[in-house]
Amino acid sequence: MNFTLPKRAVLSGPNFIRSVFERGAGIPGFISFGIGNPASEAIPVAAIQKAMCDTINENPMEMLQYGPMGGDPTLATKILDRLIHVRHMPKEEQQLIISAGSGACLGLMPRTVCNEGDEVYMDAYSFTSGINAVRNAGAKAVGIPMDDDGMIPEELEKAAQSGKGKYIYLIPNFQNPTGITMSLERRKKIYEIASKYDLLIYEDDPYGEIHFTDEVIPTLKEMDTENRVIYAGSFSKTLAAGLRVGFLYGPTSILGPMQALKNNCDGQMPLITQRTVSRVLDAVDYDEQIKTVARVYKEKCDTLLNILKTEGSAKVKYTNPTGGMFVWMTMPDNVDCEAFFEACIAHKIGIVPGAAFAADGVPAGQSFRLSFTFPPLEKIEEGAKILAAVTKEFCD
Amino acid sequence: MNFTLPKRAVLSGPNFIRSVFERGAGIPGFISFGIGNPASEAIPVAAIQKAMCDTINENPMEMLQYGPMGGDPTLATKILDRLIHVRHMPKEEQQLIISAGSGACLGLMPRTVCNEGDEVYMDAYSFTSGINAVRNAGAKAVGIPMDDDGMIPEELEKAAQSGKGKYIYLIPNFQNPTGITMSLERRKKIYEIASKYDLLIYEDDPYGEIHFTDEVIPTLKEMDTENRVIYAGSFSKTLAAGLRVGFLYGPTSILGPMQALKNNCDGQMPLITQRTVSRVLDAVDYDEQIKTVARVYKEKCDTLLNILKTEGSAKVKYTNPTGGMFVWMTMPDNVDCEAFFEACIAHKIGIVPGAAFAADGVPAGQSFRLSFTFPPLEKIEEGAKILAAVTKEFCD
Repeated sequence: MNFTLPKRAVLSGPNFIRSVFERGAGIPGFISFGIGNPASEAIPVAAIQKAMCDTINENPMEMLQYGPMGGDPTLATKILDRLIHVRHMPKEEQQLIISAGSGACLGLMPRTVCNEGDEVYMDAYSFTSGINAVRNAGAKAVGIPMDDDGMIPEELEKAAQSGKGKYIYLIPNFQNPTGITMSLERRKKIYEIASKYDLLIYEDDPYGEIHFTDEVIPTLKEMDTENRVIYAGSFSKTLAAGLRVGFLYGPTSILGPMQALKNNCDGQMPLITQRTVSRVLDAVDYDEQIKTVARVYKEKCDTLLNILKTEGSAKVKYTNPTGGMFVWMTMPDNVDCEAFFEACIAHKIGIVPGAAFAADGVPAGQSFRLSFTFPPLEKIEEGAKILAAVTKEFCD
Repeated sequence: MNFTLPKRAVLSGPNFIRSVFERGAGIPGFISFGIGNPASEAIPVAAIQKAMCDTINENPMEMLQYGPMGGDPTLATKILDRLIHVRHMPKEEQQLIISAGSGACLGLMPRTVCNEGDEVYMDAYSFTSGINAVRNAGAKAVGIPMDDDGMIPEELEKAAQSGKGKYIYLIPNFQNPTGITMSLERRKKIYEIASKYDLLIYEDDPYGEIHFTDEVIPTLKEMDTENRVIYAGSFSKTLAAGLRVGFLYGPTSILGPMQALKNNCDGQMPLITQRTVSRVLDAVDYDEQIKTVARVYKEKCDTLLNILKTEGSAKVKYTNPTGGMFVWMTMPDNVDCEAFFEACIAHKIGIVPGAAFAADGVPAGQSFRLSFTFPPLEKIEEGAKILAAVTKEFCD
C-alpha cells in the first residue's frame, strides 16, 4: 500500500502531557503535577452510583435503544434553565448541543466553521486539544500574546487584520495552562474586536464556576449582544469527568448546522450518562457541590503556592489563580528549562513544559504548568517541597 | 453577524428517515418500518443492568475519572481475541479503536484520509450517515451501480480511473438499505480493484454476525492480504444500541494517526459503557446471544415478506435478506412513488424512500427501505397486511 494521509490530519504538537505521564508511570513514589484530572475526593460518588443504577433499572429500554440525536431532553431543560436564569445568558436565537464532554466540541467547532487555511486566534499558550483540533481541521491556530489579564487586544487586532480569521478561542476563567483570568475590561475589548472583524468567540469555560473568591466576572456569553459567542460548559470538573457530559450553547445559525454535522459524522452519545447527570442534579444541591469542589481545589492551590513561595527560589514567578486547576510557573531567562525539567523527573516530580501549550508561531518559553487538583493534599505538600528545592538549585 | 459556513460542512441529503419518524410520531396506531432500531426483546436487559450497576459500584473512581484515551483495555482484549481467533482476521500491523458506536467512525475515516475533493466509492444506495459523513469531510460520495450481488466491479473500476479515489465504503453483509449480501466472488473482485488502484476499503459490518442461514461469507478483512481493509464492528445490534460501543480494526498506519486525531478533536468516550459491554461478554454466551437476535429478526423478516408476497401485488420486487435488518422493495416504473409513500402514511404505515440513501449522482429511484426489527411481531403482521393492500391499489 502506498498511502499518504493529508497533512492537516496528522498535524499536532508533541504530546508532553502524555510523555510526563508515561515517564512517571514506572516510578514508585512519583508525584505528578502534570495530570489534569479533577480531585477524586470532590466527586459525589454515592449520588452518581444511585442515579446510574436507578436509571438503568427503572428505564432500561429507553437507555438501551437509540436515543434522541439531540441528547437527553430532561438534562437539556436543566442546563438551559441554569444558563438562562442563573447565569443570565441570552435566550433568543440560541441552541444547545449536549456532547461527550466539552472536549468533543473542540473539534466540532473548526469542522463546522473553518475552511482550509482559515485562522483561529487563541492565547499564545492554550489548551493542547484546543490547538490541535484547529490544526487537524486544516485551520491555523494563531497564538496571540498575553499578559496578566489574558489575551492582549492590540495583538489580537493586529492578527485579525489578515481577514482570514473565523473565531477566537478563549478560556477566560482560570485559563489552561496559565490559571489567568481575563479581566472584565479585557473581555469587553476582545468582544469589540470580534465585532469589528466579525469573528465568532468560542468561550471554553469548563471550570468557570469553580472560583476561590466571591468575585465573579461575567462570561462573554452573558454580554453577547450580537450573538457571536459559543459557550462550552462541562460537568467533568463539577461532577465527574468519566461521565463525559458537556455542552455547547450559542447561535442557532451555527449550532443548528453543527448538530446536523455531528449527527451525520459522529453519531449519538449514550443516554445513560446524560440521564445520570440529570438525576444527580435532582439529587444534590449543585451550587453546594460546586462550592465543595472549589474548597478542595483552593486548599490544594494555596498549599502548593505557599510552599513554593516560602521554600523555593524567589526568582521563579507564579500566577495566582483565583479558581480552576492550574498554576503557571515561569523560570528566569538564564535557566536551562530542559535540564530543570529532567531534574524534576529525577526527583520524581512531574510538571508539563510550556511548549505543550504553544500555539502556532509561539516559542517554547520558560514556563511550566502545574495542576494541583488530583494529588492528595499530603502529596501536594511533599511534592511542592521537593519542587521548591529544585528551583533553588537551578535559580539561586 | 455576517457569517457563511463552509459548503462542505452543510452538505447533506434530505433526512427522510427523521421526517418519516416525525410524521408518524403524532399518529395513534402508526406502524413504522422506517425506524432502524434493533428489536427490544432481543436485548439482554438483566445482564446489562447487572454489569452496569456492578461496575459503577465496584470501580467507581476508575469510571468517574478520565480514562485511557484508547478505550477500555479489558474490552479491547476481548474484541481483539474474537476478531483474530473467532473471525480469523489478520493480527500483524493492526490496531483497534473503540468508539461511541461504529457510527462515530463514519466521520473519523474521511476526516483522517481525505483531502477536499477526494472521492469515496460506495453502493449507489447506501447508509445515510456513511454518505453524509463523506460529504461533510469535503470529499465526494460517488455512488456505484449495484446488482443482486452488490457493487458492480466494472462500474467501480470505471469510477476509480479518475485517480481521485481514497477508499471504498462497503456494507457487504445485509446491506443498509437493500439487505443485499455481496457474494464471495464479488468481494474478491472488489478487493482486486482496490489493490489495482491502491484504495482502502472501509468494511462496515454492524450486523454481519446476525445471519438467518448457516452460510457465512468471509469478511473482506479476513482476506486482507495487503492490509488495506478497515473493519467496523458494533455491539449496537448484538447487545444494545444505547450503550454506544463499536470499534474499528485495521492497518496501524491508518488507525494510529486516526486515534491521535480522535484524541485531539473528539476527546474520550465514557468508560462505563465500555466496561459494561466487557462485563456482559463475561456474563453471557455471546454466540448464543447473537443466535437469539438472529432468531428474532428472521421470524420478523419472514413474517413481513410472506405477507407482502402472498397478499400484495406481484409486480413489487423485494430483496431476500439472509440476515440483518432491512428489506428493499422496488415499485414498477409506472408507479408514482411519492403518491405511494403518501398513501402509506395515510394508512399509518411508515417506509423510507430510496432517495434517503442515494449517493452523489444517483437518482431517487423506485425503491423503499423496510426495517423489520423494531415493531413487535403482531405489528409487523398488521402493518404488512396494510402495506400489501396499498401495493395492490397502486400496482394492480
